[in-house]
Amino acid sequence: MSKPVLVLGAGGHAAVLVDILRQLNHTIVGLVAGDKPADKPVFAGIPYYASDDAVLTFDRDSVLLANGIGSLPGRNTRFKVHKQFKQAGYRFITVVSPRAIVSDYSSLAEGVQVMPGAIVNVNSIVGEGTIVNSGAIIEHDCLIGNHNHIAPGAALSGDVSTGDYVHIGTGASVIQGIKIGHHVMVGAGATVTKNLDSNKKLYVAKPFLR
Amino acid sequence: MSKPVLVLGAGGHAAVLVDILRQLNHTIVGLVAGDKPADKPVFAGIPYYASDDAVLTFDRDSVLLANGIGSLPGRNTRFKVHKQFKQAGYRFITVVSPRAIVSDYSSLAEGVQVMPGAIVNVNSIVGEGTIVNSGAIIEHDCLIGNHNHIAPGAALSGDVSTGDYVHIGTGASVIQGIKIGHHVMVGAGATVTKNLDSNKKLYVAKPFLR
Amino acid sequence: MSKPVLVLGAGGHAAVLVDILRQLNHTIVGLVAGDKPADKPVFAGIPYYASDDAVLTFDRDSVLLANGIGSLPGRNTRFKVHKQFKQAGYRFITVVSPRAIVSDYSSLAEGVQVMPGAIVNVNSIVGEGTIVNSGAIIEHDCLIGNHNHIAPGAALSGDVSTGDYVHIGTGASVIQGIKIGHHVMVGAGATVTKNLDSNKKLYVAKPFLR
Repeated sequence: MSKPVLVLGAGGHAAVLVDILRQLNHTIVGLVAGDKPADKPVFAGIPYYASDDAVLTFDRDSVLLANGIGSLPGRNTRFKVHKQFKQAGYRFITVVSPRAIVSDYSSLAEGVQVMPGAIVNVNSIVGEGTIVNSGAIIEHDCLIGNHNHIAPGAALSGDVSTGDYVHIGTGASVIQGIKIGHHVMVGAGATVTKNLDSNKKLYVAKPFLR
Repeated sequence: MSKPVLVLGAGGHAAVLVDILRQLNHTIVGLVAGDKPADKPVFAGIPYYASDDAVLTFDRDSVLLANGIGSLPGRNTRFKVHKQFKQAGYRFITVVSPRAIVSDYSSLAEGVQVMPGAIVNVNSIVGEGTIVNSGAIIEHDCLIGNHNHIAPGAALSGDVSTGDYVHIGTGASVIQGIKIGHHVMVGAGATVTKNLDSNKKLYVAKPFLR
Repeated sequence: MSKPVLVLGAGGHAAVLVDILRQLNHTIVGLVAGDKPADKPVFAGIPYYASDDAVLTFDRDSVLLANGIGSLPGRNTRFKVHKQFKQAGYRFITVVSPRAIVSDYSSLAEGVQVMPGAIVNVNSIVGEGTIVNSGAIIEHDCLIGNHNHIAPGAALSGDVSTGDYVHIGTGASVIQGIKIGHHVMVGAGATVTKNLDSNKKLYVAKPFLR
């Protein structure tokens, strides 16, 4: 039987995680967040803790943490919290939606989150804390770094590699064999056809408005 | 047991609906369409009625209607038919493909149609008559208006809101938190990174041809 | 009971196929490839044959071939091998991932491969040897030619037709009713809103980099 789960954050990303954790019949012992959670049915009955210090009142060997803080370009709260509690000896649960498609021949590190409809194909490796968001595709033989966010509907072809702290935006596309460095930001809808060095930002060509 | 279903329209969109209704073991009592349906196996054995007046021969409390008229930019037959028969006291069935992924913590209004592989995530609300087409993604906390068409493969990130009569084209992407007004048309493949006022049309940057 | 399967190729595409064939409980009697396969767990226990001539040592009526050679623009090994062994009297297995969504009212020709999360909707026909790759969408009433590659995450709306040897790149979008000729290459992320004559190449508008 899995250990009870304590969720960090209480916004939209946390709601998705809690929904999945409920489907998987995990016991959720609390939401820890600076802001009081909105009154959402998915959160009903879960105790709320206003301070990060509350985490330390749970024995680190008796709970697993779930990082419910969302990942948006330019914000690093999600990563900080991960690092802070790992250093304090806590472990993060790897969460896979029962509606995701993950090959038995792929590998997900600690704290990876694979959301509904997402695909992780054969022989791919996904690094610590990375989100493979709803409907995103990671094809065969990809090597995805730590703390990436592969946003909803993004599609990575085979043999793609990414460094750490990479954001692949909503609906973005990456062709076969591309190598992406650390801290790269691929904007929503952009298409990556060349390797990207660390710290680059790639934006989709501007749409036009009438 | 659900009431028998009468399908309005007999084109491609109707065929998808009939396929889903059959999977869900609904009884289909007729196709109502101006043009005789093509000779498709999915329609086999379903009576055909050539005139909208045929609807009125069915008791409005004994059948549910399914709006099988497709939704393309600039055409409003689908919406007119919905309004007409609602005013006559009929009700529209909400159809969810058994192969779609709809959170238990989301809400679908009357006549919503969620097609195969589509995703509606936690805490989202989808308005009356809206199509969430095959493989489209509606992330957490979205508020989707009435009579939208979220076309195949389109991806809406979290916290997106849309007005009524919005079209989000095939493969289009919308980033987190965007607000879209009424009667907006987002072209296929376009990426929405700013709010869009009512009646705007956004088109993808032109591809180039060789 | 299905015949045992001999896989041609031993790269990334072959790995995806072997993963699916294992899920479907097919017996895999060999990998045939010029280059020795990488040491992947998914290939464990499958005999390796270095020469195409090895195929001929298997009775053509006792095995089915699976074309594990990937399809990338400008390379035609996949098609040549298909033709060569068909002429020698062998048959290719049609492979559908148990995690794909294929309408009972669609039709897949010999050697079609439908990968995880892909959708083939009602009344569509997919031609010989075509790959519908992971998460790709083929909507209702499409007529897809022989030896196409619909790459991961590509979305084809309803009533689209394609000729033979067409490549629709990763994350590309095609609107309703489009007709595409033979040997057309639609680049990753590109959006097709007009018909494309044979041999055309369409590329996404260039993203910009910072």
